[in-house]
Amino acid sequence: MTNEKKFVQKITARDENFAQWYTDVVREAKLCDYTAVKGCLIYEPNGYAIWENIQKDLDERFKKTGVQNVYLPVLIPESLLEKEADHVEGFAPEVAWVTHGGLERLEERLCIRPTSETLFCDHWQKTVKSYRDLPKLYNQWNSVLRWEKTTRPFLRSREFLWQEGHTIHASAKEAEERTQLMLKVYYDFVTEDLAIPLICGQKTESEKFAGAEATYTIEAMMHDGKALQSGTSHFFGSGFAEAFNIKFLNKNNELETVNQTSWGLSTRIIGAIIMVHGDDRGLVLPPRIAPVQTRIIPINAHKEGVLEKANEIFNQLQNNNIRAEIDKTDKTPGWKFSEQEMLGIPTRIEIGPKEIEKEEVIIVRRDNNEKITISINELEKRLPQILEDIQKSMYNKAKEFLDSHIDSATTMEEMIEKFNKQRGFIKAMWCGSEKCEGEIKYETGGAGSRCIPFEQEHLSDTCIYCGKPAKHMVFWGKSY
Amino acid sequence: MTNEKKFVQKITARDENFAQWYTDVVREAKLCDYTAVKGCLIYEPNGYAIWENIQKDLDERFKKTGVQNVYLPVLIPESLLEKEADHVEGFAPEVAWVTHGGLERLEERLCIRPTSETLFCDHWQKTVKSYRDLPKLYNQWNSVLRWEKTTRPFLRSREFLWQEGHTIHASAKEAEERTQLMLKVYYDFVTEDLAIPLICGQKTESEKFAGAEATYTIEAMMHDGKALQSGTSHFFGSGFAEAFNIKFLNKNNELETVNQTSWGLSTRIIGAIIMVHGDDRGLVLPPRIAPVQTRIIPINAHKEGVLEKANEIFNQLQNNNIRAEIDKTDKTPGWKFSEQEMLGIPTRIEIGPKEIEKEEVIIVRRDNNEKITISINELEKRLPQILEDIQKSMYNKAKEFLDSHIDSATTMEEMIEKFNKQRGFIKAMWCGSEKCEGEIKYETGGAGSRCIPFEQEHLSDTCIYCGKPAKHMVFWGKSY
Repeated sequence: MTNEKKFVQKITARDENFAQWYTDVVREAKLCDYTAVKGCLIYEPNGYAIWENIQKDLDERFKKTGVQNVYLPVLIPESLLEKEADHVEGFAPEVAWVTHGGLERLEERLCIRPTSETLFCDHWQKTVKSYRDLPKLYNQWNSVLRWEKTTRPFLRSREFLWQEGHTIHASAKEAEERTQLMLKVYYDFVTEDLAIPLICGQKTESEKFAGAEATYTIEAMMHDGKALQSGTSHFFGSGFAEAFNIKFLNKNNELETVNQTSWGLSTRIIGAIIMVHGDDRGLVLPPRIAPVQTRIIPINAHKEGVLEKANEIFNQLQNNNIRAEIDKTDKTPGWKFSEQEMLGIPTRIEIGPKEIEKEEVIIVRRDNNEKITISINELEKRLPQILEDIQKSMYNKAKEFLDSHIDSATTMEEMIEKFNKQRGFIKAMWCGSEKCEGEIKYETGGAGSRCIPFEQEHLSDTCIYCGKPAKHMVFWGKSY
Repeated sequence: MTNEKKFVQKITARDENFAQWYTDVVREAKLCDYTAVKGCLIYEPNGYAIWENIQKDLDERFKKTGVQNVYLPVLIPESLLEKEADHVEGFAPEVAWVTHGGLERLEERLCIRPTSETLFCDHWQKTVKSYRDLPKLYNQWNSVLRWEKTTRPFLRSREFLWQEGHTIHASAKEAEERTQLMLKVYYDFVTEDLAIPLICGQKTESEKFAGAEATYTIEAMMHDGKALQSGTSHFFGSGFAEAFNIKFLNKNNELETVNQTSWGLSTRIIGAIIMVHGDDRGLVLPPRIAPVQTRIIPINAHKEGVLEKANEIFNQLQNNNIRAEIDKTDKTPGWKFSEQEMLGIPTRIEIGPKEIEKEEVIIVRRDNNEKITISINELEKRLPQILEDIQKSMYNKAKEFLDSHIDSATTMEEMIEKFNKQRGFIKAMWCGSEKCEGEIKYETGGAGSRCIPFEQEHLSDTCIYCGKPAKHMVFWGKSY
């Protein structure tokens, strides 16, 4: 019995110390490893396979909306980064600088891209001439680098993997529509494929992207009640385009400036999957994104016919496009079960002599531990249904958690008291001033504005902080 | 008629000036664009889509052999790069150095990875303990940077995209087998999917990878007779593992050092596709890797029913997993034809009122210009056959070119004369000394050793240069 408890013993209980639980899960599920450079991670096979599935699903969704993939260089000359004033102010303090190439000192410093707006703009300035060249709907899957002071696996690292989409359009209206469309793509992807419920809306002025006119966001709630910004879509208007002089001849042969968007989703989302769905036994992966959807665990594998049957089931499942594997190690069943649970594999199939005799298998759901006995004949039909049911249950469970951890307040006293005694977000009215926004964050011990949700409610007439007329209802919360 | 010739006029004839032809094709097919940083390219949609298809096909082949994908950081500390003596000597002169992170000077310089052996070794040194942890079969798709002095799109750039596979094994035998297996994977991929015939063999000591015990290579011949090293697989033995102290406990509980391999294929291969298959009308893409396999060109598109029929055919082909698109622009048919040819799209489908009346379409093959009239009913059955036939014809044509441009020589006079008057490779015997290898390259004006082929022939008893006993038959040739 000691073996059977080993994995669980290795991780801290979630409600005892959430931060330590997170670190333990990341380590024991072998998602990533540290390197000698702070904040630069190794994505091990278990972690990278999740990202590969995210890429595959999201890339398909992008392409359906007409987006094309490209690749732009890792290096940006300092002079290019400086072309848009807000942008350089936002990013210059946190980039890494290349000063030497080979044995020579460079004439101009080059930064490792923190994001690629300036490179896209420079390319388009040279290549776009006419309305016939528009729109350009580009995306790239790459890594970017930001010299963060404090780092945590997936949540905040110096180098991280992401996609950055960049588009230019003939009109502001079309660009604004694209901004919203890509937010919708993120929303659908995260809710449907990752089973993570979201709130969405617009970022306040102080929280928007450096150089954007408007930033829209999807925000998820982690199990500790903190928010994680999970994807953003920016409307640039023609700010960058003016700075980079990206002009085109319209149908009337007049010179106009393009309108622009960008949108990104990163490996932070792996942190969200862990912190929304994980439990005291480890990772819980949504079936649609899980690299392995079922692990077949032979019981008494040395007995005649057991491994053969397990192999037969494995082949049958593979042929039905279910991502399956067999645990052929010589560990005890208890160890195998807790390892499969730790890794978050959505189901396991237990098969031993007893089951073979009755021509059935036992399926155990990772999300709720339910045991389902079904006939082997029905496996290839039933398992996909069970996986889909797990996907839905996981979403519903997380949605209940989200809904039950959103509260509202109409006075600062109420807000502070609530943030002190409960997890989650608080809705409150706001006048729109940056000063009030900052004071609220200060007085609540760090609960900033998450977004101005698209679905507004009228909680009161006045700003919760200053008492002046309210402009918006805002979600407030602490965040990663 | 002027329009119809426009694309062809834009590119130099291939046999007139091969280098200029190459540059023209890359530009007119919109494969890539230059940036302000020399040797750092933008992969435009047409170019990147080829790489995406290469990734997809090759990645599947890797995974079938048990390889798992990972991602390692872009930055390597100087002290780590220096751990293996040959390796640092090979790479240090050509790396880019990061000296500042944010506003601070770093305590230790970090280089942008030129390749990732050192990072893999550092990770394994920490994580591998027992024979149970072996083998590790890892691969990553990433970009690397080497500060080259002269650069050319795809063929030699400072930043390039590639995959680098890294494996460790319990025995030298197993590692040697993996080295050969991955060379075979490259060989099959390049010959089958890219229709490029190859010679393969072992690199000489002076041409092998910095730190390897043995380097194996696949070499292709471009239309100008020069070689392009298209993929390499390295056997490291335990050289790196000793330097990094990667040890494991074997089954007898004794400490042993692992044996290691690495293998890579890069975006250079796009250069090979262009220079093996391209012609005076532009790019010619092998159907299996072509982002678009057929372009439907409506003739008299304004006439009733033409666009409808084109759309119908498009949907039908898409449903049959043929990568199709329709040219809906208002350009003349002649312009459309020459554009499709320039882009290397393997087939076009011409459909106009005449064809609709007879319920047929005209398919034009890009590789040999053949026109094939077939009934619309048969299209979804016949087109895949035609694409497969193009794939085979392209390979056969390139194979004939390769075979007819390999000659042999037994004296230096003969060799020099042949290299002066003809394109291609020359086989000749070699004693194995680096001095002779260098002299041969010098006296032939640059024809170096391409490889010691696995299939050896006995051309004479003595080294072509020094007359001492010959050890190997070697392929000699100029190269990119």
